[in-house]
Amino acid sequence: MPIERLLGAMMLVLVATGCVPVLRGTGDLGIVVERATGRVQVVETTGRSVLGTVEGLGDLSHAAAVFSRDGRHAFIFGRDGGLTKVDLLTGTIAARVVQAGNSIGGAISDDGSLVAVSNYEPGGIKVFDTATLRQVADIPAVGADGRPSKVVGLGEASGKTFIFTLYDAGEIWIADLETPDRPHIRKITGIGRLPYDGLVTGDGHFYIAGLFGEDGLALVDLWSPEKTARRILDRYGRGEQKLPVYKMPHLRNLSTAGRLLFLPAVGQHVVLAADTGTWTEAGRVAVLGQPVFAVARPGGRQVWVNFAHPDNDAVQVIDVPTMTVIDTLRPGKAILHMEFTPRGEQVWISARDSDEVVIYDAETRKPVQRLPADKPSGIFMSTRAARMGL
Amino acid sequence: MPIERLLGAMMLVLVATGCVPVLRGTGDLGIVVERATGRVQVVETTGRSVLGTVEGLGDLSHAAAVFSRDGRHAFIFGRDGGLTKVDLLTGTIAARVVQAGNSIGGAISDDGSLVAVSNYEPGGIKVFDTATLRQVADIPAVGADGRPSKVVGLGEASGKTFIFTLYDAGEIWIADLETPDRPHIRKITGIGRLPYDGLVTGDGHFYIAGLFGEDGLALVDLWSPEKTARRILDRYGRGEQKLPVYKMPHLRNLSTAGRLLFLPAVGQHVVLAADTGTWTEAGRVAVLGQPVFAVARPGGRQVWVNFAHPDNDAVQVIDVPTMTVIDTLRPGKAILHMEFTPRGEQVWISARDSDEVVIYDAETRKPVQRLPADKPSGIFMSTRAARMGL
Repeated sequence: MPIERLLGAMMLVLVATGCVPVLRGTGDLGIVVERATGRVQVVETTGRSVLGTVEGLGDLSHAAAVFSRDGRHAFIFGRDGGLTKVDLLTGTIAARVVQAGNSIGGAISDDGSLVAVSNYEPGGIKVFDTATLRQVADIPAVGADGRPSKVVGLGEASGKTFIFTLYDAGEIWIADLETPDRPHIRKITGIGRLPYDGLVTGDGHFYIAGLFGEDGLALVDLWSPEKTARRILDRYGRGEQKLPVYKMPHLRNLSTAGRLLFLPAVGQHVVLAADTGTWTEAGRVAVLGQPVFAVARPGGRQVWVNFAHPDNDAVQVIDVPTMTVIDTLRPGKAILHMEFTPRGEQVWISARDSDEVVIYDAETRKPVQRLPADKPSGIFMSTRAARMGL
Repeated sequence: MPIERLLGAMMLVLVATGCVPVLRGTGDLGIVVERATGRVQVVETTGRSVLGTVEGLGDLSHAAAVFSRDGRHAFIFGRDGGLTKVDLLTGTIAARVVQAGNSIGGAISDDGSLVAVSNYEPGGIKVFDTATLRQVADIPAVGADGRPSKVVGLGEASGKTFIFTLYDAGEIWIADLETPDRPHIRKITGIGRLPYDGLVTGDGHFYIAGLFGEDGLALVDLWSPEKTARRILDRYGRGEQKLPVYKMPHLRNLSTAGRLLFLPAVGQHVVLAADTGTWTEAGRVAVLGQPVFAVARPGGRQVWVNFAHPDNDAVQVIDVPTMTVIDTLRPGKAILHMEFTPRGEQVWISARDSDEVVIYDAETRKPVQRLPADKPSGIFMSTRAARMGL
């Protein structure tokens, strides 16, 4: 048999058995978490299709993901403390560790070498080599009160440095892992009561922690050598009647729209806009329910908002130049997450109780496709690899 | 022979003959233009290495590139009017057309389906299907004066719309190619004399054209339905003694640093900062020569500047919070271009007459690696695929 024919036959066998993954770029890939089944879908946004599924990721009832520097691998943080490295090109699990009892999220260093995980149980953070998932650091979060603390709002702060918040202790820590077995930690204490989430802004300049126990947020200027915390948007809800909180808002997906940072106000039917120069309130937009995510479309022309029960079938769109709600969409039942493509022309929305991901044209605000998914929750695009702070 | 051994042997043959490209992500890839030899290097920024070279791209003495939505293909615009689609994964030319006599640059639509090229000879723009490089539109640029015009500053303005500037006619055109064979064109006339370059800001909000014939720039608000042009930074050089211009500054790589947009001032030893809210001058920084590129590090903490002859062996770093030059680097001879990795931790600098690409740690501002390259000029990272306006 001539070698060409033999090769051809061999390749057919390989392809037929799934042994030869298709050569393709990774810039338009993403994952959709199927929360009830411990599974993720690998999706692509050019043809808007599901490429395959990867099973065996444990409890994904509250999951988040970051991506390797080259966009090939997703690191998925599961509720059960599982950290799973998924190969998007082969649709397989490249590595997996159950590293704690209950994890809440994580971040990856800008050189791609370290992935850090924040934990509820037993608290603290653990850091892993991204190539092997070998543990390289274990940092318990014992606050000034001497007690171990849950950790929330873990972000990347450039150069193998991570920043995170101690929920119970009310502290923000900055851990430099240039030498992983001897991490250098700077502690900022007394930031306020019950910080519930935190994020690094998209320009890597600030870290913001939301405070459930106070009417305001804590801000750290990462460019300042002092790196102390100050209170911003203090008493933003003063005089307002507190509503019961049906679901805590999420800060992780925040992005700035021009000079404004949009924040879901805890327990109020309001999205707040903060001026990122003065860190004072620049406006507030009344919305139809308690906001969970307020996500700026890339470019910042609009902010898309979803809501806690009983308004979790709605998405509202805020027009930033006029600071008004210009549209109320009903994509499906139990809207959990929204993720834009990097240039902002599409937004992918998970409708858990409709068992669908609904893709909207962000410009026309019309649905252009619906993809079946089993109880979809988080949607994460691989281009998050290129974003600071994640 | 058992099938596994046969397969193994076959794969070895395939790999040895270069027939089986390595499966890999594309998020950390880029190209380095070797201007004298019509060749590009394919590089990766995680291990900082050259993966291979691709030859036969024609005259690359003034070349630019954009990327497919998935990051796999580069579309390279050559001086000779050549448009070449390079497959970064296989290191081969996927398609090539010589579409005009002299091209200057181009852009890709946000859905990835169309690539547009701006031409000097015979002027106008041509638009191609990205899959095949089949021409789908040819738009001559005949200005209000009835004469064909060179086209500069071609940018992407969302939804299959491109914006570009007519050099000779002093006009800005916005072409909607939703129906490519019947493009809808909006013309803005009288923007000023001799616009030499233009760009869409990173948030897709504004288009700015530099004017060689006047002391100021033309601005179009792409969010406004009127889409008229207004003059900004008028008379920024008033009263200054004009210097001979050794090399025209480039606007294409501009990016905002917080609220500021940094611009190389034509013919002056100055980098201007414009306030992107008021579009007035917010400051100016004295630099050692005539600036060519003023590139904000992702996040906007610094702006790196290179220079025209005779200062083209220097790079200066402006610290944005203090608006001062904090470092003067000498990476090599004839510095032509600077490109940051997406999170801004590395900057790749081409030193043409040193035949080297010099990679700096952007934080320490120390060189961390030197890669040989034959007369390197433009460096383009694949994550440009995710950036609006390009």
